[in-house]
Amino acid sequence: MVHSCLSLKLDWIVSLPEISRSRSAVLLISCPDRKGLVAVISNFIFTHNGNILHADEHRDEETCLFLMRVEFDPSGMDMTLDELSDEFIKIADRFEMQWRLAKGTRRPRMGILVSQYDHCLADLLYRHKAGELDCDIPVVLSNHTAAERLAGFYGAKFVQVPVTRETKTAAERQQIALLREHKCDLVVLARYMQILSPAFLAEFPNQIINIHHSFLPAFVGARPYHQAFERGVKLIGATSHYVTEVLDDGPIIEQAVVRISHRDSVENLVQKGRDLEKVVLSRAVGWHLDNRVLLYGKKTVVFD
Amino acid sequence: MVHSCLSLKLDWIVSLPEISRSRSAVLLISCPDRKGLVAVISNFIFTHNGNILHADEHRDEETCLFLMRVEFDPSGMDMTLDELSDEFIKIADRFEMQWRLAKGTRRPRMGILVSQYDHCLADLLYRHKAGELDCDIPVVLSNHTAAERLAGFYGAKFVQVPVTRETKTAAERQQIALLREHKCDLVVLARYMQILSPAFLAEFPNQIINIHHSFLPAFVGARPYHQAFERGVKLIGATSHYVTEVLDDGPIIEQAVVRISHRDSVENLVQKGRDLEKVVLSRAVGWHLDNRVLLYGKKTVVFD
Amino acid sequence: MVHSCLSLKLDWIVSLPEISRSRSAVLLISCPDRKGLVAVISNFIFTHNGNILHADEHRDEETCLFLMRVEFDPSGMDMTLDELSDEFIKIADRFEMQWRLAKGTRRPRMGILVSQYDHCLADLLYRHKAGELDCDIPVVLSNHTAAERLAGFYGAKFVQVPVTRETKTAAERQQIALLREHKCDLVVLARYMQILSPAFLAEFPNQIINIHHSFLPAFVGARPYHQAFERGVKLIGATSHYVTEVLDDGPIIEQAVVRISHRDSVENLVQKGRDLEKVVLSRAVGWHLDNRVLLYGKKTVVFD
Amino acid sequence: MVHSCLSLKLDWIVSLPEISRSRSAVLLISCPDRKGLVAVISNFIFTHNGNILHADEHRDEETCLFLMRVEFDPSGMDMTLDELSDEFIKIADRFEMQWRLAKGTRRPRMGILVSQYDHCLADLLYRHKAGELDCDIPVVLSNHTAAERLAGFYGAKFVQVPVTRETKTAAERQQIALLREHKCDLVVLARYMQILSPAFLAEFPNQIINIHHSFLPAFVGARPYHQAFERGVKLIGATSHYVTEVLDDGPIIEQAVVRISHRDSVENLVQKGRDLEKVVLSRAVGWHLDNRVLLYGKKTVVFD
Repeated sequence: MVHSCLSLKLDWIVSLPEISRSRSAVLLISCPDRKGLVAVISNFIFTHNGNILHADEHRDEETCLFLMRVEFDPSGMDMTLDELSDEFIKIADRFEMQWRLAKGTRRPRMGILVSQYDHCLADLLYRHKAGELDCDIPVVLSNHTAAERLAGFYGAKFVQVPVTRETKTAAERQQIALLREHKCDLVVLARYMQILSPAFLAEFPNQIINIHHSFLPAFVGARPYHQAFERGVKLIGATSHYVTEVLDDGPIIEQAVVRISHRDSVENLVQKGRDLEKVVLSRAVGWHLDNRVLLYGKKTVVFD
Repeated sequence: MVHSCLSLKLDWIVSLPEISRSRSAVLLISCPDRKGLVAVISNFIFTHNGNILHADEHRDEETCLFLMRVEFDPSGMDMTLDELSDEFIKIADRFEMQWRLAKGTRRPRMGILVSQYDHCLADLLYRHKAGELDCDIPVVLSNHTAAERLAGFYGAKFVQVPVTRETKTAAERQQIALLREHKCDLVVLARYMQILSPAFLAEFPNQIINIHHSFLPAFVGARPYHQAFERGVKLIGATSHYVTEVLDDGPIIEQAVVRISHRDSVENLVQKGRDLEKVVLSRAVGWHLDNRVLLYGKKTVVFD
Repeated sequence: MVHSCLSLKLDWIVSLPEISRSRSAVLLISCPDRKGLVAVISNFIFTHNGNILHADEHRDEETCLFLMRVEFDPSGMDMTLDELSDEFIKIADRFEMQWRLAKGTRRPRMGILVSQYDHCLADLLYRHKAGELDCDIPVVLSNHTAAERLAGFYGAKFVQVPVTRETKTAAERQQIALLREHKCDLVVLARYMQILSPAFLAEFPNQIINIHHSFLPAFVGARPYHQAFERGVKLIGATSHYVTEVLDDGPIIEQAVVRISHRDSVENLVQKGRDLEKVVLSRAVGWHLDNRVLLYGKKTVVFD
Repeated sequence: MVHSCLSLKLDWIVSLPEISRSRSAVLLISCPDRKGLVAVISNFIFTHNGNILHADEHRDEETCLFLMRVEFDPSGMDMTLDELSDEFIKIADRFEMQWRLAKGTRRPRMGILVSQYDHCLADLLYRHKAGELDCDIPVVLSNHTAAERLAGFYGAKFVQVPVTRETKTAAERQQIALLREHKCDLVVLARYMQILSPAFLAEFPNQIINIHHSFLPAFVGARPYHQAFERGVKLIGATSHYVTEVLDDGPIIEQAVVRISHRDSVENLVQKGRDLEKVVLSRAVGWHLDNRVLLYGKKTVVFD
């Protein structure tokens, strides 16, 4: 590959939570692409008697980056996962890898922020109860009270943190404190209608997932269903993405669309969109929790 | 309905071609909404012994506009369709209708403009041969020669009209002359990569259909698949729309999307997109030819 | 139309519940097709000063049947809806119509039967609370207790009616009595895993909607996800239908599918299928409640 | 994994054609699952200085089978691909592998059988010309003459082989001879409406791909669109599969569906279905040609 490689800041490594669905561990790696990486990595696991359950990798041609996800069963290994970690450092250094070993010893903890519309919250809580989301949900924060009863029904602590223009900074400090207190790894904005400050984002780098109710990059910002109605599109969409400082511009994890027609009022779009938003957000959250999403630059790899 | 109605220029009436798939005629109407319109119109057809095969109507709440499409079998009528037209003027005047009677006595004629990519052209020509598109295709114009053999195979006259920055005005004059000479009602841009001048558009008001290779309004303008690749979207789309003076901004007739992943290079997007573009353009053209598309403001009603 | 018409038993008329979402009334009609029906019916509404909000009709070519749905605003009419009904009888007799006027004065009442899987129940109850389903849900019956807390949260009375092979007849008598006591118009089987007897069906003719977790007619009967897994299909589906005496053979109201791959275990199919089942059942129930579904023979018309 | 493994006849190995899209080679492997297979195989490629471009693998839990596809760039290797093959035998024997090395030195050759409907043929030929299908198409056989001109336009030799009940055996002998003469690796039934005899199938084991115009296993056999119309389904489908001796029962490669409504006549289903059939068949053929499809038992793995 002779074309020059883009420089790329890689910061996803720190953000991925532990997994715990089963005994399996997940090794996530990114490094400059070169020959033999698959062999070296799979050999390393095998040498220590781990059983690779699934391996997937991707080469990004523009950045000459190699990205890999290896899920393996460590039950018959000749060392602990902590020892394996220490051992892997030698390989990582040699190949300039950024990497992380999700050990499956601790369930990640997800805090949810929500405003008045509770359909995404209800969907996340129901799926969590049904065992579809491999995490704990210790706390639900809202600038309203509408979701209190629902959170309670599913056993999540609910805290109202009102937000006004004047109190926003203090409110964010309280939100951060609560998320920290409950040891949240991941923050999900389940139709939370306030824009988070850069200071908030800096507390949870690449750990905040939002649902935007349009097919991004179309209809950025406020009232996307109204924008879609005005433009006369024939499909509406929803987009789940990591939150960055630029509004609705973060790396996209998942998108979906549904057909509409001239018969649909804005109110109908809102109702049809609810079904999209729920599914798209829950899929993105589930993939994140399963350590399937790798961030690089403005894009994601979602390993299936 | 008490909210005030937006003022709206209605210019679709003049642009709809005749139909000829069968004996059926189509009456297209738009007028300020008021009680009794369905009754008055269906009664008019019935009184003259026409048989309504299908009626559909739509009320646009913002503009207080009533839009109707009535397809009827005129074979048992007590007068000719020309006489019926004359008769209908009284009703039209009374209700301030803009209207048009597509008599089914003449097949519409479609001219196609194409550049180097011929997949949409091939699809339109194949469907035409298969009887899916109820029109004649007398002429295919191109600024390249790549499509000549294909057009010839399907029996359409092919004329190359080269376009450079210097010759664009003259080239458009030649294109218009050729389309007029072949009595084209409808002009389809089947991946024609030149921007048409306002003067060209004025010759075929609301009679030019384009395919844009993105899910509009996302990725307007050049190289939309590259834009989509850079942004990291998870679905790519195609949009068929009437051409207006603002680039990629005309009323949308049809859209579709397809899923992509991190594995897809730009080249893969282009290939996957071809399948979308073909289907979306052919659907839009087919609906237009069947007098199913009504334009109002920046939007369309597509009666099914 | 000269081909001979199939004879057809029409029994949907009795089964459609009242609507109440707004002031609008819905007139549902089926009769032998003939000229002028649209005119006669729309004229009737107009003559009595009703305002047609939306009219849709369908001709079934095999049975020579005309089916129509007229939604109208009766607020400015010169008579009550009951008087209108009496008046319409004359037209109905003349054209051999089966018909029904849904007056919008009473909300339909929906009873839900559920077994252990509660995802469809949760979805119906959430949508009901969100205002998407225009009905009351007075009672939830189950042969298990798993759904009790959920029903309670949403304010529906829950009654456990255990079913064993020996007690099935008695259990059905109790179920029917409870549904009658709560004046249920519609019975929804939200993953209710018992087969209903002909006697039960006879109590609620064309008023029982089921969700089957396959793309019917593929994979009738038990364990359809296992059947799909064994066959190696690339899409799985869900089907909502009216229940008839032949298992999984009733008229289909709605279907949808989702893509799967070789990576999906049966357990994954079950999870992906849950999302399908919820959406497909809720759509079917919503359309039924909005008087959009007309049954004829083994098929449905769903007016949009 | 302690559950007992199903016995499984593996016969896909012999049937996969060579690839030639690029310099890359593809190694296809299946064997009883055990620890370390990924490491051993990737190490083998790496040791001989091959560069793994993409590796994917699957474990079938029912059959305890490990399936792997490794695409690698052999350009810098220390031996020829033939020598690599000889070398790999030692590993293959040790792990009881069935395997095949597609060397990319010869383009596979595809023969097409077609009857009167030519939409799938037209699609395959257009895609082939556009470079989407990595093969040669030396010959098109038909029991009719309708496709002759189309085949000729795209430069494929056309031979009519009429088939009657009496001449079927002789006709098949002629077809086989023609396919052999043109060195066809793969036989595609592009809406070929005759059932092939077991003798024909035996000539091209797992090398015959068919398109069936329904969502299998629904609507097996003749006139599936009529069956779908009668049943009143809300979606119609198409299925591409390897042909086996049981009608429409072979391993499924790809499926897709499209929404229909009560407005669609059987004729409309046929037209909508054409678009499905084309896309589904072309996808399946493309994946087969790219050595992405692995057959095991009655199912396929399609590596993406």
